[in-house]
Amino acid sequence: MHTTLTAHEGNDVFIRPSPIAMVWQGPGHPHQAMAVPGVTLGPGDVLVEVELATVCGSDVHTVLGHRDAATPLVLGHEQVGRVVAVGGPVTAVDGTVLVAGMRVVWSVVVSCGVCDRCSAGLEQKCRRLAKYGHDRVHRGWELSGGFATHVELLEGTAIVIVGETPPAAVFAPASCATATAIAALDAAGRDLPGTAVLVTGAGMLGLTVAAIATDAGARVVVSDPDPARRLLAGRFGAIATVDPTIGAAEHLDAAHLAAGVEGFPVAIEMSGDARAVDAAIASLSIGGTAVLVGSVSPGAPLGIDAERIVRRLLTVRGAHNYRPRDLARAVDFLTGAWRRYPFAELVGPVFPLHEVDDALVAAASGAFPRVGVRP
Amino acid sequence: MHTTLTAHEGNDVFIRPSPIAMVWQGPGHPHQAMAVPGVTLGPGDVLVEVELATVCGSDVHTVLGHRDAATPLVLGHEQVGRVVAVGGPVTAVDGTVLVAGMRVVWSVVVSCGVCDRCSAGLEQKCRRLAKYGHDRVHRGWELSGGFATHVELLEGTAIVIVGETPPAAVFAPASCATATAIAALDAAGRDLPGTAVLVTGAGMLGLTVAAIATDAGARVVVSDPDPARRLLAGRFGAIATVDPTIGAAEHLDAAHLAAGVEGFPVAIEMSGDARAVDAAIASLSIGGTAVLVGSVSPGAPLGIDAERIVRRLLTVRGAHNYRPRDLARAVDFLTGAWRRYPFAELVGPVFPLHEVDDALVAAASGAFPRVGVRP
Repeated sequence: MHTTLTAHEGNDVFIRPSPIAMVWQGPGHPHQAMAVPGVTLGPGDVLVEVELATVCGSDVHTVLGHRDAATPLVLGHEQVGRVVAVGGPVTAVDGTVLVAGMRVVWSVVVSCGVCDRCSAGLEQKCRRLAKYGHDRVHRGWELSGGFATHVELLEGTAIVIVGETPPAAVFAPASCATATAIAALDAAGRDLPGTAVLVTGAGMLGLTVAAIATDAGARVVVSDPDPARRLLAGRFGAIATVDPTIGAAEHLDAAHLAAGVEGFPVAIEMSGDARAVDAAIASLSIGGTAVLVGSVSPGAPLGIDAERIVRRLLTVRGAHNYRPRDLARAVDFLTGAWRRYPFAELVGPVFPLHEVDDALVAAASGAFPRVGVRP
Repeated sequence: MHTTLTAHEGNDVFIRPSPIAMVWQGPGHPHQAMAVPGVTLGPGDVLVEVELATVCGSDVHTVLGHRDAATPLVLGHEQVGRVVAVGGPVTAVDGTVLVAGMRVVWSVVVSCGVCDRCSAGLEQKCRRLAKYGHDRVHRGWELSGGFATHVELLEGTAIVIVGETPPAAVFAPASCATATAIAALDAAGRDLPGTAVLVTGAGMLGLTVAAIATDAGARVVVSDPDPARRLLAGRFGAIATVDPTIGAAEHLDAAHLAAGVEGFPVAIEMSGDARAVDAAIASLSIGGTAVLVGSVSPGAPLGIDAERIVRRLLTVRGAHNYRPRDLARAVDFLTGAWRRYPFAELVGPVFPLHEVDDALVAAASGAFPRVGVRP
């Protein structure tokens, strides 16, 4: 959909046809289209027209009622779009002043940059956090999620300009999947060249981690129960793949044998499956680090052997969301890597905006790493 | 006991009376005295006369059969002594050439410095590791533990020269408790000034961590069920102490209130008690790190909530033993700190060497942070 900016008087922006956001009302309810005739941009705000959004696993969790969400809500936090209007001088992360027409992605969270958590480098846990696609719709910030024709970016959002050549499917997941994958590998705290890395779960995040780690020189083994996902993992750089359903001990033996190691210095757990978490920790070498990312829904407690943690000097670390600089690194990575790894193929069917409910059903099927929504 | 070096021909050392090592035969058996008439020093070896040894909790665990040990065995790995003879030019960690009469402590482990684990900074897990007070007695290395008149230090041992003024009780625990406490705080990976630190377990290690962290500018809260230990914690720098037996939630509330925080950026778990491990992890702030040290015996699996680890970006990390440089830092710390904190008082009764079984019974009583053994 192409829109016409018919008026831009001061900071009041009028667009014809009016921007539309798809509003989710709660589990079991279909989305409703909401027209937003006028948008008032604050001095640091930016209005963006969405080119393509992708459905994240957490959108599916929310719609299925697996996690709490304040409704009504405009879902969607992975997307790429173009600047339509700015409320004043606003700069991208690299310092470029944003102007209409620029192709951009933006961070999921808007952090204040000054509270104790922001100061401690935990911007994703900012005390005055706003979060695209997660916050209840309220007057003055209706265009708050990616399942919409337009999104109103608030002052403080990390905005990254992206290139014109890569398909939208490459950049749409940058603001969640790719940036989180960057942050997860950072959380391992290792130099990657030559390092054996186990990745459990070959969904969007696991495949992305495999490609980033491979590009950095790691030797990556990917574990996933789905044969099609294991095949895909090979195209994202994995030197070998293993099937966790062959039995816990056999699975670990196969993973170690494939990497030629007694244990993995790094394991990245993307599936959220409790057995995969156990396997990731059990796979570690002495001094190794398991980064947990996938466990974002309530689950049974892990049975962790404290003596093993101590005697083998293991580290188990959680990673959630990311910091603004990780988004810039994610875009840098994708800009070069999309020709080496088939990122564009990870987005399966693309649905028109008004069929977002169908898009969520398709995403919930698990048949595609990502499903698209295009206004 | 003072010995006379009667002959030192080449690398064969003869001492009158003969060195004595107390040999442990296995659970339920008393120690037996073994005379070692002559010692052949390799070119990098050092013979040391023990001034004072202390009984570590792991010695007690071994004697009670709570951990596997290859017998016969000379226990003891915390001690201070004086150089009697050297097999060739040997230098201390600071580069000083060792000569007879120097007062020294030495690392628990002897690492090769060249294997993959040593190269990765995991010297304590060296593939060709020898470990004082832990390895089966064998011909040619009978003086292998601290419960003896003399210890034969092997080439590659980290040896640190200590001052003459502090009592032996200050330096004897350096090579295990103090160096491990240094390593545990390092594993937290935080700048300590102003940081709130929870320490669970006010034994020798917990009290030592409290003093080290306090000296570095941290605000330390110590948790221990024993009122006497809590009182002692105050003398080792704790700004407050809490009783874990008042209930899990109340305990955490009290600890947070005492430190004036919502959560602790750092928790150091020294007790090995499964409830204390749970409390240490539950006490953490977003982005916090729990370092587990005390869990060195088999125990029930921890019930860890993976979602909490992920969403709160927590780190759970094991620390075990230490690296050679940590021993030098431990001695540096004790050299200054023994006048500010009552380290000398932590060693309770001191038994003569031939009463080492009584010393172990006294240590197992838990009444004293440390019990001494003096040849």
